[in-house]
Amino acid sequence: MDTPRYTPLIESLPADVPFVGPEELERRLGAPFAARLGANESLFGPSPRALEAIRAEAADVWKYGDPDCHDLRAALADHMGVAVGNVLVGEGIDGLLGNLVRLLIAPGDAVVTSAGAYPTFNYHVTGFGGALHKVPYRDDHEDLPALIETARAVDAKLVYLSNPDNPMGTWRRGAEIEAALDTLPEGCLLCLDEAYMEFAPDGTAAGIAAEDPRVIRMRTFSKAYGMAGARVGYAIGAAALIKSFDRIRNHFGVTRMAQAGAQAALLDTDWLAHVQTEVGVARAEITRIPRENGLHAVPSATNFVAVDCGREGDFARDVLTALQGQGVFVRMPGVAPLDRCIRVSAGPAEDTEAFARALPGALATARETADARD
Amino acid sequence: MDTPRYTPLIESLPADVPFVGPEELERRLGAPFAARLGANESLFGPSPRALEAIRAEAADVWKYGDPDCHDLRAALADHMGVAVGNVLVGEGIDGLLGNLVRLLIAPGDAVVTSAGAYPTFNYHVTGFGGALHKVPYRDDHEDLPALIETARAVDAKLVYLSNPDNPMGTWRRGAEIEAALDTLPEGCLLCLDEAYMEFAPDGTAAGIAAEDPRVIRMRTFSKAYGMAGARVGYAIGAAALIKSFDRIRNHFGVTRMAQAGAQAALLDTDWLAHVQTEVGVARAEITRIPRENGLHAVPSATNFVAVDCGREGDFARDVLTALQGQGVFVRMPGVAPLDRCIRVSAGPAEDTEAFARALPGALATARETADARD
Repeated sequence: MDTPRYTPLIESLPADVPFVGPEELERRLGAPFAARLGANESLFGPSPRALEAIRAEAADVWKYGDPDCHDLRAALADHMGVAVGNVLVGEGIDGLLGNLVRLLIAPGDAVVTSAGAYPTFNYHVTGFGGALHKVPYRDDHEDLPALIETARAVDAKLVYLSNPDNPMGTWRRGAEIEAALDTLPEGCLLCLDEAYMEFAPDGTAAGIAAEDPRVIRMRTFSKAYGMAGARVGYAIGAAALIKSFDRIRNHFGVTRMAQAGAQAALLDTDWLAHVQTEVGVARAEITRIPRENGLHAVPSATNFVAVDCGREGDFARDVLTALQGQGVFVRMPGVAPLDRCIRVSAGPAEDTEAFARALPGALATARETADARD
Repeated sequence: MDTPRYTPLIESLPADVPFVGPEELERRLGAPFAARLGANESLFGPSPRALEAIRAEAADVWKYGDPDCHDLRAALADHMGVAVGNVLVGEGIDGLLGNLVRLLIAPGDAVVTSAGAYPTFNYHVTGFGGALHKVPYRDDHEDLPALIETARAVDAKLVYLSNPDNPMGTWRRGAEIEAALDTLPEGCLLCLDEAYMEFAPDGTAAGIAAEDPRVIRMRTFSKAYGMAGARVGYAIGAAALIKSFDRIRNHFGVTRMAQAGAQAALLDTDWLAHVQTEVGVARAEITRIPRENGLHAVPSATNFVAVDCGREGDFARDVLTALQGQGVFVRMPGVAPLDRCIRVSAGPAEDTEAFARALPGALATARETADARD
């Protein structure tokens, strides 16, 4: 008998990891990236007040963080117009998704998502033995009616939708989601990932009652608030669902610096407005630059733009590789037909310019490779 | 049908949380604690170099942390004299324990621990449906031969041992653990929690080959390194076991500040020596003070002392409550006969003095309550 003895589920899981981090790519390339535009981080940085709060809180790093995240939850409840009992703080949306899946999904349970949507959600579903059903995008949008129809057909316990969407950057009006909720089958929870909501136009957020048992919404300090490295996100849902996470979560998992920083970030509405403005500027540039290169950019309500390279996935992969070789870190969707695109994050002018400088050469390289392949 | 539909396992779990945090206790008492001596944190604080590294790294908080923890793992491999592939960094030992249990324990699988040992380990085992078998302490020590005998009897996949022990502070010689390993039944992994090892006398750490498939060791930056609020711990084990965590862990879960701070802390051996000296001084005091009050302290190889209040658990609980009412936060073991003790963390002189001042009154109050009860 071997030691240790893994569970049969663990034995069945793939050994590969969901993402190779940019640091590892840099180590492989032997040089740091000049423009880090692949992870949809906020290159505009955190609020100076958040930074100050993190640094001040570090003096108390010898103390465990408050497992209740009491003060941050109170601030978030106020921010979202819900009760404290409707708010859960966790180790980023990744951590929250993992725990949500664990609460609902036993081996064989059905889960619905879009083909090409957030891989880490799929990673968690697979990790708990769930049966993933994937619905194709329609015109670069997650196909909400088809997601719900599939959920009904497979008796799904959980359906995932991001709004605005990652990796395409598209979005739906909140009213559409509100209406769709009434068609959600009984016993199916909608996980609404709103990681990019702060970048979306008015009317994108669905108006959902805090105690609506059909939905859990997730938001994060990793994107608009510029705190990806602090690992802090939050979920809004019915109090009973929120409370159920207490049965399984890593209670002391959110660091003191994350809690203090997030609270300060939330109050600095001027900084958020500044980031929103800058992202708008960068988004326009990342739409214009591809056009000058004969490419099309998918309209985006996020801090990134999916740039349609106009050919098959292998071509876009070659463009991506060539860009990375020139120090411009971008990512791309993993499945067709979305993988005709590369995904470029918004950043200050110098980062966008690095992309603009590298793109023509990357396209030329990819075209040569494609010609050789044909 | 209700929404959401939890798994049967989740439905079966208790709704209570493993620990009420000191902040919540303060909120209930309506005042902050004058002496925070209940969580075995390092009241001597982190290395100034670690603090500096955390604050410097905060400037890059907009970037996700390296999911490989590459630099920290390399430093830890060097520190422990093992290969990088034998090192896993995670969100504190709590996070590492949760993932370890998930790897091995399916509903009904047997796990062995000591009655009164670390509750969060039990929380994870229960959370994944494991069948917990608890072995009584013997003379305030975890009973290693009985743990192994029980593991054999119940066909355990996992057995937990802390050395030095929490909550009693006792310890075993490393050589004893090395010898016991040869009696461990096949297919049973020993989880050796060494959270307090930096406070223990020479010879306490077992000499275990990095690739020994029978053991996984866990250590932390939360205790001697004074970084509990940053959530960073590590595991040392066979490379295949370490790699298997990649199938389930929250890859971006360790914050940038935690990684940078831990690396700086590890290199500041002077600060560690300073903390070790100060803990020795405090430990002697927390041994002396109870003696002056007619009580006995259990010899400790940790940064806390179990003070034997000399009577039943209800009495010690009353002492603890009275101490907390006087602003001195301490904790106590949860089960008899360990619960005749309260557990007092080492701290600077003013904290120990606060305990010394509060203890006589707390004992008097508890005696009055006990007399009224009799």
